[in-house]
Amino acid sequence: MGKQRSHIKIGVFIAGTGHHVASWRHPQAQADGTMNLSYLKGLAQTAERGKLDMLFLADSLSIDPHSHPNILARFEPLTVLSSLAEVTSNIGLVATASTTYGEPFHTARQFASLDHISNGRAGWNVVTSSIPATGANFSKEEHLEHGRRYQRAQEFVEVVKGLWDSWEEDALVRDKESGVFFDPDKLHELNHKGEFFSVRGPLNIARSPQGHPVIVQAGSSESGQQLAAQTAEVIFTAQNHLAGAQAFYRSVKEKVASQGRLPEEVSIMPGIFPVIAETEALAQEKYEELQDLIIPSVGLKILSTAMGGVDLTPYPLDGPLPEIELPESNAVKSRSQLIKEMAQRENLTIRQLYKKVAGSRGHHIFIGTPEQLADRMEEWFTQKGADGFNLMPPLLPEGLELFVGQVVPILQERGLFRREYEGKTLRDHLGLKKP
Amino acid sequence: MGKQRSHIKIGVFIAGTGHHVASWRHPQAQADGTMNLSYLKGLAQTAERGKLDMLFLADSLSIDPHSHPNILARFEPLTVLSSLAEVTSNIGLVATASTTYGEPFHTARQFASLDHISNGRAGWNVVTSSIPATGANFSKEEHLEHGRRYQRAQEFVEVVKGLWDSWEEDALVRDKESGVFFDPDKLHELNHKGEFFSVRGPLNIARSPQGHPVIVQAGSSESGQQLAAQTAEVIFTAQNHLAGAQAFYRSVKEKVASQGRLPEEVSIMPGIFPVIAETEALAQEKYEELQDLIIPSVGLKILSTAMGGVDLTPYPLDGPLPEIELPESNAVKSRSQLIKEMAQRENLTIRQLYKKVAGSRGHHIFIGTPEQLADRMEEWFTQKGADGFNLMPPLLPEGLELFVGQVVPILQERGLFRREYEGKTLRDHLGLKKP
Ligand SMILES: Cc1cc2nc3c(=O)[nH]c(=O)nc-3n(C[C@H](O)[C@H](O)[C@H](O)COP(=O)(O)O)c2cc1C
Ligand SMILES: Cc1cc2nc3c(=O)[nH]c(=O)nc-3n(C[C@H](O)[C@H](O)[C@H](O)COP(=O)(O)O)c2cc1C
Repeated sequence: MGKQRSHIKIGVFIAGTGHHVASWRHPQAQADGTMNLSYLKGLAQTAERGKLDMLFLADSLSIDPHSHPNILARFEPLTVLSSLAEVTSNIGLVATASTTYGEPFHTARQFASLDHISNGRAGWNVVTSSIPATGANFSKEEHLEHGRRYQRAQEFVEVVKGLWDSWEEDALVRDKESGVFFDPDKLHELNHKGEFFSVRGPLNIARSPQGHPVIVQAGSSESGQQLAAQTAEVIFTAQNHLAGAQAFYRSVKEKVASQGRLPEEVSIMPGIFPVIAETEALAQEKYEELQDLIIPSVGLKILSTAMGGVDLTPYPLDGPLPEIELPESNAVKSRSQLIKEMAQRENLTIRQLYKKVAGSRGHHIFIGTPEQLADRMEEWFTQKGADGFNLMPPLLPEGLELFVGQVVPILQERGLFRREYEGKTLRDHLGLKKP
Repeated sequence: MGKQRSHIKIGVFIAGTGHHVASWRHPQAQADGTMNLSYLKGLAQTAERGKLDMLFLADSLSIDPHSHPNILARFEPLTVLSSLAEVTSNIGLVATASTTYGEPFHTARQFASLDHISNGRAGWNVVTSSIPATGANFSKEEHLEHGRRYQRAQEFVEVVKGLWDSWEEDALVRDKESGVFFDPDKLHELNHKGEFFSVRGPLNIARSPQGHPVIVQAGSSESGQQLAAQTAEVIFTAQNHLAGAQAFYRSVKEKVASQGRLPEEVSIMPGIFPVIAETEALAQEKYEELQDLIIPSVGLKILSTAMGGVDLTPYPLDGPLPEIELPESNAVKSRSQLIKEMAQRENLTIRQLYKKVAGSRGHHIFIGTPEQLADRMEEWFTQKGADGFNLMPPLLPEGLELFVGQVVPILQERGLFRREYEGKTLRDHLGLKKP
């Protein structure tokens, strides 16, 4: 696996105006970015100029009017990636789709179709939809509970892969002379019968260029990591420190191995939120400029959500965090505890605290020069904290343009990143074999 | 209504190698047409050169290996139209999607997304999936019965339209100065609770350029026509004779009016299967050439399906149709009766009979010169048998190129068809107002 570990993998998580919650207010921001196709085309082409491995589009199936403006109104990922496929030729195209509110037949088909349209560049980020309100958009009384969502996800992925295998590569003979259109021995029913699904198949689309579009996963719970170890070929994660990233890396690679898979079949790509400028001081200034754009009510709302819903509106913004009861819920408890401890340790006002929490929403913040960012990436890569990174530029297109223009050349100079695409498909870029 | 009735509406039903069941075997056919994106782009661009109103893509969610090769393996319509949107700029893009195996939230979003991507050129052909085997691909024990499918379809369309209305046109304010991203008074929950669906909304995509993508329907049963009268803006139908087309036209327009809608809000577009050549004799020859390419076993299979599943394999192909019992099932009974009567009346062998039934699968066959086709279209249009036509060329791209190159100029000369697109959206082309 020499080749695979000699190059850092790099994806870019495209999110409207950027990943900073207040990015849309920045003077340079294209405020309608999430719904502006020519703007998104420009981002895709910039990423391809930088020879990045892939574009990533997140998704959700319900909106909270108080959430990040980037996710309130946006394109549906598979349609927009089909359109971006036309203005790019090499970069991978990864769309998010939920297994909780979808049907495996539709999902298998849409991704196979995108894979054909893009000549083998499709990837599927498998998510289970964590927002309970989503059920209300899909005639469900209740959102499936976390463990059940992952059981359904596992079966869902199995069915999708089975459907992708329903046509063999050379099944479509199309022999005009004899009148044989396809070889019936190479067309297979699936006849899946499981707990959640029963699906006969075959799929009504020819086997796609990659055989299987690439499977991406970002689960962080025990069952999330289990699903990833079983099926994912790329794993996204939020890691803030090298030590933590290394522990996650080791643990996931072990889980992968214990599934009988090769650890190098899975690329671990933590998110990184890079604020880059010529000097560290200028980068810090740039970050502060974004931080100052956070509307207090928005910052407070994000902080209170991160702390399990506590109401902080009665307290002065420039005073300390009051002594409050933290919620009992398991999921957010540790996070709210950590936030509370940080507030006490660093003696922060409520305003300072929401800025810490809201800006990058928990992702690895890097603030410094292009050279320093290359160092950080090299360190994480060589020290086995990461096989690559999922870039989450705070402000777009600026953050992506700087990365491509100034960081990529340094990585190339160091022999850590490709100078040209060597293959055509996303599997080629990631060094994955074709199933 | 002057403008709307002065121009014939013309769509083209894009189906791989063409609508003749044996078209793929023709020496000129691009046998991999259904799965060849650059070929489909060429067709879309030819149709746009001809200033046609729209492209139409059919769909199904299960395959019968014995069905028309064009529908065995094909792109998923919404992804491929998103890609075709990039290589065209005016022509409408109509995709088929089923209400029986979909979720209104997904469908509303995908079509809104296509409408944004194409700058207002999306249309939705609402179908209920008539093939019972489809349920087996979607974890259903049974295919919903015909009447229930239409009840579900009606509620489905209502929910989709409601979701399209969840964002008002100017809801996204994006005022950087004040930090107001959207106007909460212009974002609406739907809170639909019905027999089949409960959907809260709002949709997570901004209102699309057309407000509502255009609704197309092709139901022919009583409940199918009822749904069309309530919701459709374009109606596809198979009509073989002017008198029948006129009766259908009158009856549908009356049904539309009785729903409190204006009859001109609905365009009735029968399919037409035009075999065109310089002389009638050459056109007839061209048709025979295609007919002779039908593989006997395929032709026999199609004939036997059309006759409700009777087994004709024991009888000589060049002998007469034997005296057989016709099936009791309501749906196919009248069709099989008609076929049997035709065989007796015209004294046809089994081979001659399957050729009649299989070639165009029941659609209006026209065989003649470009001038004669223009006459036929003008006659149906002025005599109120049609507001326009859905072209189903037997062989592609030839049939579309001939139509665009030789029939369109005649219709333009007669003032029956546009010389240039006057508007940008599909609603503009069809003379429909924006909801
Ligand atoms: C980089 C990254 C991107 C993610 N994108 C999405 C997304 O687009 N949609 C979604 O519903 N969840 C997304 N998630 C959430 C994960 O799928 C997962 O639900 C979350 O990390 C919690 O883990 P768990 O599901 O194992 O509890 C993302 C997570 C990360 C780290
Ligand atoms: C031109 C035309 C195109 C059609 N396209 C589709 C299609 O793509 N998918 C489908 O399931 N049915 C399609 N149909 C079938 C109709 O939706 C409808 O089911 C059929 O005409 C029978 O009518 P009924 O549903 O009212 O019984 C089409 C029909 C016509 C006339």
